[in-house]
Amino acid sequence: MRLFSSPSEVGARSGEAAWLRAMLDFEGALAGALADVGLADAPAAEEIAAVCAAGDLETAAGGAGSTGGWDLEALGAGTARDGTPVPALLAQLRPHLSEEARAVLHRGATSQDVVDTAAMLVARRATAPLLADLDAAGDAAAALADRHRGDLAAGRTLLQQASPITFGLRAAGWLGGLDDAAARLTAVRDERLALQLGGAVGNLAALGDRGPAVAEALARRLDLPAPPVPWHANRSRPVELAAALGQVAGAAGKVGADVALLAQTEVGEVAEGGGGGGSSTLPQKRNPVAAVTALAAARRTPGLVATMLVAMPGEQERAAGAWQAEAETLTELLGLSGEGVAAIRRCLEGLEVFPERMRANLDLTDGLIMAESLTTALTAELGRARAQELVGGASRRALEDHRPLAATAAEVPEIADALGAERIAAALDPATYLGSTEAIIDRALSTHRERTSGGRP
Amino acid sequence: MRLFSSPSEVGARSGEAAWLRAMLDFEGALAGALADVGLADAPAAEEIAAVCAAGDLETAAGGAGSTGGWDLEALGAGTARDGTPVPALLAQLRPHLSEEARAVLHRGATSQDVVDTAAMLVARRATAPLLADLDAAGDAAAALADRHRGDLAAGRTLLQQASPITFGLRAAGWLGGLDDAAARLTAVRDERLALQLGGAVGNLAALGDRGPAVAEALARRLDLPAPPVPWHANRSRPVELAAALGQVAGAAGKVGADVALLAQTEVGEVAEGGGGGGSSTLPQKRNPVAAVTALAAARRTPGLVATMLVAMPGEQERAAGAWQAEAETLTELLGLSGEGVAAIRRCLEGLEVFPERMRANLDLTDGLIMAESLTTALTAELGRARAQELVGGASRRALEDHRPLAATAAEVPEIADALGAERIAAALDPATYLGSTEAIIDRALSTHRERTSGGRP
Amino acid sequence: MRLFSSPSEVGARSGEAAWLRAMLDFEGALAGALADVGLADAPAAEEIAAVCAAGDLETAAGGAGSTGGWDLEALGAGTARDGTPVPALLAQLRPHLSEEARAVLHRGATSQDVVDTAAMLVARRATAPLLADLDAAGDAAAALADRHRGDLAAGRTLLQQASPITFGLRAAGWLGGLDDAAARLTAVRDERLALQLGGAVGNLAALGDRGPAVAEALARRLDLPAPPVPWHANRSRPVELAAALGQVAGAAGKVGADVALLAQTEVGEVAEGGGGGGSSTLPQKRNPVAAVTALAAARRTPGLVATMLVAMPGEQERAAGAWQAEAETLTELLGLSGEGVAAIRRCLEGLEVFPERMRANLDLTDGLIMAESLTTALTAELGRARAQELVGGASRRALEDHRPLAATAAEVPEIADALGAERIAAALDPATYLGSTEAIIDRALSTHRERTSGGRP
Amino acid sequence: MRLFSSPSEVGARSGEAAWLRAMLDFEGALAGALADVGLADAPAAEEIAAVCAAGDLETAAGGAGSTGGWDLEALGAGTARDGTPVPALLAQLRPHLSEEARAVLHRGATSQDVVDTAAMLVARRATAPLLADLDAAGDAAAALADRHRGDLAAGRTLLQQASPITFGLRAAGWLGGLDDAAARLTAVRDERLALQLGGAVGNLAALGDRGPAVAEALARRLDLPAPPVPWHANRSRPVELAAALGQVAGAAGKVGADVALLAQTEVGEVAEGGGGGGSSTLPQKRNPVAAVTALAAARRTPGLVATMLVAMPGEQERAAGAWQAEAETLTELLGLSGEGVAAIRRCLEGLEVFPERMRANLDLTDGLIMAESLTTALTAELGRARAQELVGGASRRALEDHRPLAATAAEVPEIADALGAERIAAALDPATYLGSTEAIIDRALSTHRERTSGGRP
Repeated sequence: MRLFSSPSEVGARSGEAAWLRAMLDFEGALAGALADVGLADAPAAEEIAAVCAAGDLETAAGGAGSTGGWDLEALGAGTARDGTPVPALLAQLRPHLSEEARAVLHRGATSQDVVDTAAMLVARRATAPLLADLDAAGDAAAALADRHRGDLAAGRTLLQQASPITFGLRAAGWLGGLDDAAARLTAVRDERLALQLGGAVGNLAALGDRGPAVAEALARRLDLPAPPVPWHANRSRPVELAAALGQVAGAAGKVGADVALLAQTEVGEVAEGGGGGGSSTLPQKRNPVAAVTALAAARRTPGLVATMLVAMPGEQERAAGAWQAEAETLTELLGLSGEGVAAIRRCLEGLEVFPERMRANLDLTDGLIMAESLTTALTAELGRARAQELVGGASRRALEDHRPLAATAAEVPEIADALGAERIAAALDPATYLGSTEAIIDRALSTHRERTSGGRP
Repeated sequence: MRLFSSPSEVGARSGEAAWLRAMLDFEGALAGALADVGLADAPAAEEIAAVCAAGDLETAAGGAGSTGGWDLEALGAGTARDGTPVPALLAQLRPHLSEEARAVLHRGATSQDVVDTAAMLVARRATAPLLADLDAAGDAAAALADRHRGDLAAGRTLLQQASPITFGLRAAGWLGGLDDAAARLTAVRDERLALQLGGAVGNLAALGDRGPAVAEALARRLDLPAPPVPWHANRSRPVELAAALGQVAGAAGKVGADVALLAQTEVGEVAEGGGGGGSSTLPQKRNPVAAVTALAAARRTPGLVATMLVAMPGEQERAAGAWQAEAETLTELLGLSGEGVAAIRRCLEGLEVFPERMRANLDLTDGLIMAESLTTALTAELGRARAQELVGGASRRALEDHRPLAATAAEVPEIADALGAERIAAALDPATYLGSTEAIIDRALSTHRERTSGGRP
Repeated sequence: MRLFSSPSEVGARSGEAAWLRAMLDFEGALAGALADVGLADAPAAEEIAAVCAAGDLETAAGGAGSTGGWDLEALGAGTARDGTPVPALLAQLRPHLSEEARAVLHRGATSQDVVDTAAMLVARRATAPLLADLDAAGDAAAALADRHRGDLAAGRTLLQQASPITFGLRAAGWLGGLDDAAARLTAVRDERLALQLGGAVGNLAALGDRGPAVAEALARRLDLPAPPVPWHANRSRPVELAAALGQVAGAAGKVGADVALLAQTEVGEVAEGGGGGGSSTLPQKRNPVAAVTALAAARRTPGLVATMLVAMPGEQERAAGAWQAEAETLTELLGLSGEGVAAIRRCLEGLEVFPERMRANLDLTDGLIMAESLTTALTAELGRARAQELVGGASRRALEDHRPLAATAAEVPEIADALGAERIAAALDPATYLGSTEAIIDRALSTHRERTSGGRP
Repeated sequence: MRLFSSPSEVGARSGEAAWLRAMLDFEGALAGALADVGLADAPAAEEIAAVCAAGDLETAAGGAGSTGGWDLEALGAGTARDGTPVPALLAQLRPHLSEEARAVLHRGATSQDVVDTAAMLVARRATAPLLADLDAAGDAAAALADRHRGDLAAGRTLLQQASPITFGLRAAGWLGGLDDAAARLTAVRDERLALQLGGAVGNLAALGDRGPAVAEALARRLDLPAPPVPWHANRSRPVELAAALGQVAGAAGKVGADVALLAQTEVGEVAEGGGGGGSSTLPQKRNPVAAVTALAAARRTPGLVATMLVAMPGEQERAAGAWQAEAETLTELLGLSGEGVAAIRRCLEGLEVFPERMRANLDLTDGLIMAESLTTALTAELGRARAQELVGGASRRALEDHRPLAATAAEVPEIADALGAERIAAALDPATYLGSTEAIIDRALSTHRERTSGGRP
């Protein structure tokens, strides 16, 4: 689907072939559902199901002279002509069916039913590998959080070193975003993907009073929930799916942003593993290709989510333009979020981590990053105002004279008297100033374990 | 907040004053929480709480010569200087506090904690009237669905008459969208709004090992859930809130789109009630102002949701630009979705409905809108292919000769023989071709009743 | 590129094959440019040019055992691995080149140079049919404006009949939007598409002091302007192109919106020509498929333009994620705007126009649409306040009693005395109240003629 | 307009008061224009002009008991009621006018004419300080480019050190983006801002055959070009303005992105000047507040540009929702792009640059950043394949053994023989590998000089 890209598994499950398969599954299952409730003869339904199940019409229908296979170009031309691919699909099916089967084919449905239900099937099938990647990325983040829970690093705000953290805490933060996104996408998959069957205007008129029965039988056969009411003109379901996918791409992009920054030549705290991302003429580069892929996906998905929202207020029983903007947008959202998550999984599973470099960076400011800690220690003795004043002075001198804060602080009698050398040293040791790090990591890990051990079908 | 607009109640609860109130509430409650866990003396905490509770610093501090009141301009200048309003807010608080209280003020928190928690408080307070309007709009849609469940109207797809529906079915569709949006926003409010407290880099270091205890006490005091872990660098919560608000505006916009179309001079099936929207020089106009307001809101929200998603991949422990793009965007999303929903509530509560005009429009095609129904009836006798062929021919003649389909169909011997005059007439009667309309309306109504009777605080 | 769609000519010129062609053209021309300035031997350059010119490597290189043809899958895999398709492309070229030619291949360039210049080539090639369609659509709108310059119709604001216009005036408005978009896209094509050649970090270091000379030679060979400076980190050019394409889609969408509304069953003032858009089971429908296609495109392009803008602030000499989000986004913008314009061209060239139905709709309000005209006539006699008061009263009575305004107005003595029956009738004749219609249409037509007769290569 | 922000001058010129002023200017000038062409008496026109010119109705009308001043709240309530502020504005004007003047007030115009023309006036007035800031930011970038044209620094792609550049070259790149944006916005201001006057449906019917004459007189009085045709339903002009503003914010954001990255603690190549951005508890931080402000603006503008594009396909003679979404969106675009540019001007004018730190960072890879340069030198002697092979080997050894490339390269006999120690050293000296840096900087500077010396009114 995308320019010069080998589709991820998510992409493969949401591309043209996947849509075709889902539309055929709809038509096959609809025939079965009509038979289930007595609105069609079983042999006709089975005939339709068999033709729709075939990957290749030639095999299915065996007709000599059949051109064989599905004609995707004809579907394209039909879409341009009719505004939907369904008439062209039915036209390809009919020659392979008996007259009885033709009378049953597509009965009671409208084109939008096929496309909307296919979108839901595609989404369900494509979200399986997507969620698997998301969980695996989460597992990798969890392992990093646990392994590096005590590895000291500089915490950075507005790209400035602020206060010490551990690398494990940062990884726990990534885990939180990935878990939130997975939880939301799982909820949408389990609660919001549903069959659409409404007929021309949403009242199932062509099925008389058997509409709900057919819908339930069809839902059973497609293993998609039957919704309480048709949703042809209520685009909440696709919009919620789109928003969840956008969130997924954003969570992956957040990891990508941090990895790309930490992998900077001047920072060097992590590197993407594997052989990729190198350059023959620039041997010093270790391009964070996976992180960049996730970031690119995270920049492209927001506009696509906006498109889905723009399409919500469609006209009456089927919109003129808004609905037609959805299918490909959803396909791209699946493909891009899938690409981003697969990249971040690779990135995290292979991430090389350099704790000694983290520690070295932490020492770059010669203790100034510990000023808040020293102030906190001193506050207990001298009150906050005085503590801030004294530490501020010592920090300024350290900055101006390029000397360690330890030295300039020790020279302040009031500080030295209040704390003594030992407590000054302790206050300037990053390892003493990690607050609730352990508790936060533990909670993030247990949230992840609970979510992923819940088991998904 | 918006150009020449009187803010809705939602707007009032999410404007500058509401943000200021929420930030003060945070600082006041934080002091209390510090006292709760023994990190501050109760009198100092109470002093801070009292100053923060005051709407007007003069009242609070009583100082003669005090300029009194909060200086919003200074907050603005401070925001421009510091990138966040918090330092300027603290600077306004300090002169009114004793030295002891100053030492407690804001302890353990960072600016982002204040702004993020304030955003959550603002969202919770502003969503109350928003959800009330949404429920009331749903109630109005439900009443329309019930009252007009049998009032025949043309169903329209791609803006063309397609097949008959009832106006009640259309209103049930609106109800579905409003209910989905309300359910989603309610879930976000109940499950995703939460305190943020992390300190400079998210590990609550300045609170030693008491971070979680302070967070819990603060959450209790603000009546906001304490999250399992700080979310300063995981923007899932604001993003889910934004997406839910976008969905709300879209659901309101969908009603607006239909009302504006149905109110067209040439369609005339509904009109907005009340005196607004008239024109002194164009007396025939009944401008659907409320519908237009909802549509305008639905066009503006998608880009704002995209902005929130763009901001997800921020840098490390606090982003340089991304995080700073959120607060005003969220404010606008609240205001716009609130405006859209309030408008749609007014629109639906006052909607004038003209069933006789619906019926007249249904008859515009002289029976052609019933062609599918006639085909369905004939299929039972002659098979689908032959039925389509015969009805297609009769329809073409009706179109070409501008005659009723009833007449051209009756002239086809095969049709006449198969069905007889009575069954032809029945098949051409829209009232016989409504499929599952009643069941669908009933389900939409019961879903709405269940949701709204659940009771919300 | 798009789901089940037969690509438009614009789409074909901006798809994967077009990008591959453009990248090969770059490499071939670069070799030539190096030879032009003496940095490569002519035979090596010619060898590279020949291989790059071939559609099929087998033909070009003739090597037995060659797998033949370009391996798009390998380009995809390479893109996933390297973050850009260029290394994989070079890897496919090298086996077909002599050692001398390999030493020349790609010399002085970086991957981004190839992709950026290819984007510009693709844009120039794809905009040719796009602009041709846009001009043809404009021609068709101009013909409608001229032919129907006097055909009376209801002007509508907020979907309410407001005051009379002619259909020609509306078509002139469409023309204005199409011409503005064409003028803007032409300006971007002529002034902003340009070569990119900068080398690894934009200073052309690997070419010593010959960088500008190579760039000029390369520009000549590719027939693309050489920019004053490399623009690898200044994304203004792609952004301006994207905005122009978004404007194009919007202008086409505007026509689509009006056509879809005018084609409504209840309005019936136009219909799309041709056989498409019909429905076998709903014979009365004439779905405005082309208009809907343009509207769908206009809903999808804004989010893509936003993506291009989001990508502007990229990091330093090549962005990590932002730049990588551009190529496919631009490709989609070209494809979608091309699709929208091609659809509107078909729509306008085949549009069926029903002036008698326009006139009938104009009479729907029994003269009320002329109230402003009557007020204007009366103002000259009685002053504006009194005129508004009297016409307002007559209008209200007309509305309430369902009588013509002509009748209720004639019954008001003050009106009758002031104007007399003849002037009342004249004031109520829409043909007398068209203001500057003729002048506006003439200006729109002459603007179009001037623009299109300017001649474009 | 924005949450706790002191409006920039651009913001002040595009806020509520500025809109009110522009609408009053329209009504005052319209009255004058009607008098100019003989459609109104001069005294009535002068009366209107005087009332509209007053900042305070009390002053203008002098009426005792007048509440004085404009009632912005009433404008807000009117907007909510009517969907536009114009009726409420006229209602505030009328009591201060004589009967004669009331008859002239707003004659021939419709609400949209007022709002659209006001938007153009607001845009023209607000773009003056915006363009001044943009030029000043460009001047500052130009000065940096010139001053630091020889200061060596690491060029970085994908956030990895790639090859040497000079800081001047990077600043020249910033200059290019700022100049492109300024050129585009200037073109839009000069060529696309124009009067809108069309009356209810765009044909100026209420002005008889004098419409064009009134439009020309009005244009003259407002000093806005008269467009060839009314553009009420052709939204190209606002869309082009929006896109130009988005580009401006993006160009400022690009500078912000680079400055924030260069100011990182670990990079330290620049710092924002001035006293802002410090932190009392984190003394080591120099927060790049201006850069962050520009980045935040650049993240918020793309969604707003998308909104303007979404609004293009409005319905017929005035859209139901789309048009109404424009005014505030445009206002925010002006305010945000103004904020971003003002911040970048401050940032660049006060930027502290640390060339010695740049040089130190350049040496971080112990010569590996010069591998491409060494390969280039060696290619002349040994051919490219062999050169790459040998340098690649030496680079690998340097990486593995943490030794300088100079050392590992000198140990390769083939390299040593081919180049000799002196030429090896030269090839590893970044100052020798700057390609066309001087020429590029010179061109960027001269482009800027030409553009800004062109002189703008």
